[in-house]
Amino acid sequence: MNSPLCELLHIRYPVLQGGMAWISDGKLAAAVSEGGGLGIISAMNAGADYLKEQIRLARSLTDRPFGVNVMLMSPHAEEVAQAVIDEKVPVVTTGAGSPAKFLPAWKAAGITVLPVVASVASAVMAERAGADAVIAEGQESGGHIGELTTMALVPQVCDAVKVPVLAAGGIADGRGMAAAFMLGACGIQMGTRFLVATECGVHQNYKDMVLRATDVSTTTTGRRFGGNTCRCLKNPFSRHFLQVEYQPETTAEDVADLGVGALRLAAVEGDTKNGSFLAGQISGLVRKEQPAAEILREVCEQCDALLTGSRGKD
Amino acid sequence: MNSPLCELLHIRYPVLQGGMAWISDGKLAAAVSEGGGLGIISAMNAGADYLKEQIRLARSLTDRPFGVNVMLMSPHAEEVAQAVIDEKVPVVTTGAGSPAKFLPAWKAAGITVLPVVASVASAVMAERAGADAVIAEGQESGGHIGELTTMALVPQVCDAVKVPVLAAGGIADGRGMAAAFMLGACGIQMGTRFLVATECGVHQNYKDMVLRATDVSTTTTGRRFGGNTCRCLKNPFSRHFLQVEYQPETTAEDVADLGVGALRLAAVEGDTKNGSFLAGQISGLVRKEQPAAEILREVCEQCDALLTGSRGKD
Repeated sequence: MNSPLCELLHIRYPVLQGGMAWISDGKLAAAVSEGGGLGIISAMNAGADYLKEQIRLARSLTDRPFGVNVMLMSPHAEEVAQAVIDEKVPVVTTGAGSPAKFLPAWKAAGITVLPVVASVASAVMAERAGADAVIAEGQESGGHIGELTTMALVPQVCDAVKVPVLAAGGIADGRGMAAAFMLGACGIQMGTRFLVATECGVHQNYKDMVLRATDVSTTTTGRRFGGNTCRCLKNPFSRHFLQVEYQPETTAEDVADLGVGALRLAAVEGDTKNGSFLAGQISGLVRKEQPAAEILREVCEQCDALLTGSRGKD
Repeated sequence: MNSPLCELLHIRYPVLQGGMAWISDGKLAAAVSEGGGLGIISAMNAGADYLKEQIRLARSLTDRPFGVNVMLMSPHAEEVAQAVIDEKVPVVTTGAGSPAKFLPAWKAAGITVLPVVASVASAVMAERAGADAVIAEGQESGGHIGELTTMALVPQVCDAVKVPVLAAGGIADGRGMAAAFMLGACGIQMGTRFLVATECGVHQNYKDMVLRATDVSTTTTGRRFGGNTCRCLKNPFSRHFLQVEYQPETTAEDVADLGVGALRLAAVEGDTKNGSFLAGQISGLVRKEQPAAEILREVCEQCDALLTGSRGKD
């Protein structure tokens, strides 16, 4: 796979593993990096100590580069932003806000910074702030999402910025990867497919829910009050959430309280009733638990075959 | 463009023009068919007389095949379904429901039937009912939409049916078309891009709104009570609609009443305040009013160049 992204990140396959809170730990990130992609440790809402521990774990498992996803709305964002510098993490992806505040320090430390963006305006702002590339993420993704879909977002972002663009959202096989390339991306990020990687330590109930999902198994919560839309698998939790969300007397604060602890319940406890199982619309395509390296090889080989096969009869 | 769809429909480019109520008339359909695609007349909510008039108009402008979009929820669906047989229309696309009821008569009349589907289940039902192909339409489309995005929907539909699959939603240039091919589609349907075709008789204000749109210019109304979600450009009408829709005392009937007449106000009167301007998320990519033939040539040439260029260094 010949992509400028491979040179930029020193990886074999232009594939990032999405930063998923309570899911993307040092073990999963190391497995993806060992397999030739770029593994990402999610710093989630935790402090620097947790992150440093996961970085050490990843380094004990691989010599290859990996990255850290910094959740900008985390109460620990400041210390986490410093920790990636102290730990000499080569790549940082950011979510949930503008990374402008941290970019100068990260760039000074030689870190490659790839913000996740959900609109043209955020992509342009990220580029202006010094981002090395942007990850244009469509709303078919699992977790916190914007409004635009991958198909609509990626070409519009490509037209608006000069930095490389990665595509995320709705991609779980070589077809999605090849489509992303056609839209102008030079690489992809996958979350849902890596969630069922053998090396992913998420509760087996979570993996089983993704593996059994169909095309219509996801829903979105948090839409009513804006800015906090979240895609998850339909279950008693999501039904309860939506029911409460749309009661007339419900406030934005009530809705914020509803989600507290639900990610941990899903990922760690495997509580299929009360947990929030974040996953993308492409869950219906994900059928098999496999080692991360096998996922990477399979996706990239299929993508390569499609791009080569498309040359027609010459 | 070598696609089984071209053989099936006797067209040069595997591109359908979407059936848009109050917009896709005989003149636009003829222009698209003359340009080498398949033009589609929208039968919308009108009776058979209106449709027959538009078919005659199209036939006066082109000898090439064109199709009719039958809106299955229309009060005139029965007479329209008969009219396409009487008029020997070669291709019918259907929207807003299951076409199973009409399929036997249409197939007996030699009509090629392509239902628009928004989920794997609807695609499978359409195939079982005898559809010749399905149009998998993502929710980035303008007008009435489902939940799945094009990127997530198309490969899942391709895996579930044996008939050819067309992709719709979020496609306005050769990048989107090439991406659709990678996802497994053998053709595309475009609405928004043809809305600004020179031959499209929609009010100039409507075209101008699409031409000035950015990536974040659309919104969705009708989501609260389910089954009637509609994507349109943000304007005073959409803001008023959403405000009323989410008032606690609002009922499903109130919401249904809100939209009455708003499409005509947009398309015919160009009423930028009170009209409902249906358009897709890809509006931000659409920058130029051009003849339909030029749009087709441009999109297909760009697609072809991408598919050929992707072969790498051999």
